[in-house]
Amino acid sequence: MPSEKAKYVLVLDIGGTKLAAALFDGSSTFLRQARTLTRAQEGSEPVFARVVRLAESLLTKQGVERRNVSCIGVGCAGPLDSETGIVYSPPNLRFWEGFPLKQRLEEHFGLPVVVDNDANAAALGEQRFGAGKGRNHIFYITVSTGIGAGLILGGRLYRGADGGAGEFGHITLARGGPKCNCGGRGCLEALASGTAIARRARREAKKAPRSLLSRVRAGEKDALTAKDVVAAARKGDPLARKILRDAAVYLGLGITSAIHLLNPEIVIIGGGLSRAGRLLLDPVRRTVAQRAQKHLAERVRIVPAKLGSRAGLYGSLADALERCPTCL
Amino acid sequence: MPSEKAKYVLVLDIGGTKLAAALFDGSSTFLRQARTLTRAQEGSEPVFARVVRLAESLLTKQGVERRNVSCIGVGCAGPLDSETGIVYSPPNLRFWEGFPLKQRLEEHFGLPVVVDNDANAAALGEQRFGAGKGRNHIFYITVSTGIGAGLILGGRLYRGADGGAGEFGHITLARGGPKCNCGGRGCLEALASGTAIARRARREAKKAPRSLLSRVRAGEKDALTAKDVVAAARKGDPLARKILRDAAVYLGLGITSAIHLLNPEIVIIGGGLSRAGRLLLDPVRRTVAQRAQKHLAERVRIVPAKLGSRAGLYGSLADALERCPTCL
Repeated sequence: MPSEKAKYVLVLDIGGTKLAAALFDGSSTFLRQARTLTRAQEGSEPVFARVVRLAESLLTKQGVERRNVSCIGVGCAGPLDSETGIVYSPPNLRFWEGFPLKQRLEEHFGLPVVVDNDANAAALGEQRFGAGKGRNHIFYITVSTGIGAGLILGGRLYRGADGGAGEFGHITLARGGPKCNCGGRGCLEALASGTAIARRARREAKKAPRSLLSRVRAGEKDALTAKDVVAAARKGDPLARKILRDAAVYLGLGITSAIHLLNPEIVIIGGGLSRAGRLLLDPVRRTVAQRAQKHLAERVRIVPAKLGSRAGLYGSLADALERCPTCL
Repeated sequence: MPSEKAKYVLVLDIGGTKLAAALFDGSSTFLRQARTLTRAQEGSEPVFARVVRLAESLLTKQGVERRNVSCIGVGCAGPLDSETGIVYSPPNLRFWEGFPLKQRLEEHFGLPVVVDNDANAAALGEQRFGAGKGRNHIFYITVSTGIGAGLILGGRLYRGADGGAGEFGHITLARGGPKCNCGGRGCLEALASGTAIARRARREAKKAPRSLLSRVRAGEKDALTAKDVVAAARKGDPLARKILRDAAVYLGLGITSAIHLLNPEIVIIGGGLSRAGRLLLDPVRRTVAQRAQKHLAERVRIVPAKLGSRAGLYGSLADALERCPTCL
């Protein structure tokens, strides 16, 4: 049984597809996690209720009483205000339009709650416990359905004037490029995200009946995902490799821009697509080496994230320990 | 006569084309300045000697003795290391390759010297005394021969891991775009700098004999400058307007990228080309309004610099007061 002094930290990771909760002990040791689907289509209150249930069942399973939890750290899909903890209709959780996530969780659990956007949380996690340990100038990128970034500048998370920094997916790479969900054109996200890769694969698989891609999901090419493209590329399919490489080159160009603006020590690539490993990393590194100024390119390391899907959980732990008023 | 306690600050602005020196009193009041040409073609030691003479003649004219100067603040074309004050062959001062500018000035004057790159100095100047007064999140851009930026993040100048941040001219805007001096392709600087504008004007003026541009410098179209383009655009020349507008649109796309990454409160545009006023600013603002996410675009102000060619001088003053070990 934990003593009264051994306080726990509960952390939550709220995405458009999945929810996760985890429990850490007072010395930042990971104890247990639980995951479930968000089922965003059910709307605002059902999703909030599911978050709460997931957290409560985790506490029960671990035999931890609420009064032994010191605070709750939350990483959530943005945009959101990390001070007030109000969420402003994230693309995949549109119904949370001005939703007071921090306040609602505080009311329910009677505990202090610290909220940040998921890319920021993951960046913090990689800095404190992952690939960015000991680094003060980190450009963390998450590449999955969308593309986002978390900026560690001078040792600290940089959120910008209104908590809106890190919208790396919406830097412009092609003036007349493909339309983006954000309303812009030629955004990095429209060229190199999982969504963009899947879209291109669907289009091109139809025209290339002999490619592995066209056979992955016989008769349902419209269901091809970025994961399918990575799997086919691993098996050597030329079309899949080309699609992945082109996306990686755009990612490399975007990283080149970020390196010129921010001069980081390290670029960490996380998110689902980072599982493609060197199929993604090699062309990214090559592009940066070709395009960036020599003194910047030689200095920066470009590495995969270490914590995988737990980066956000670890980051919310760090965030909670740093910003929670009672833990300070 | 100044009392022994009324210490002065001497500041220097060292560019590839011009040198400037200025003297401020102990309460940051601008007293006097002197300017001369760099004559970079003469090489390393002659340029250093000219910097020293300019500073000494300024002190003499103002009747200030060296022992009444507390320190020297220097803004110089980068790349340079702002800690060691060593300059690494700036594009327009190539001969200063590993030149110990700080040490040489300290040896000559027997005073502490603080060195920073010119875009950083100008950004600091605009923050403390110009268009960015009271702002903590500033993206300062200088558009002239090249394009650079100075980042004020969370109230402080951000220099990156190795003092290399702010290379805004080398973000990529067109994968297959025109070659850039840096070796890259499609860099903002290759599309929107004074150099890029002049290059395009020379090319197009030859093909448009009725344009005002083709008549500005009869018989010597190869001497057309960005200043000529701005002058012709002011007089309503359609070709000059088009060239300026296209450059401004690229500048707007670059600013859109920076806004997404950094979420600044204010973007300040300085440098020689900012004298084009609304001919430059209007298409920049329109592009940002069209391309940036609404919550970021609505929040940010895009304004011209206020201090003009004195921004760097004021910035080096602020830098000296902040970083000089004896002034602290």
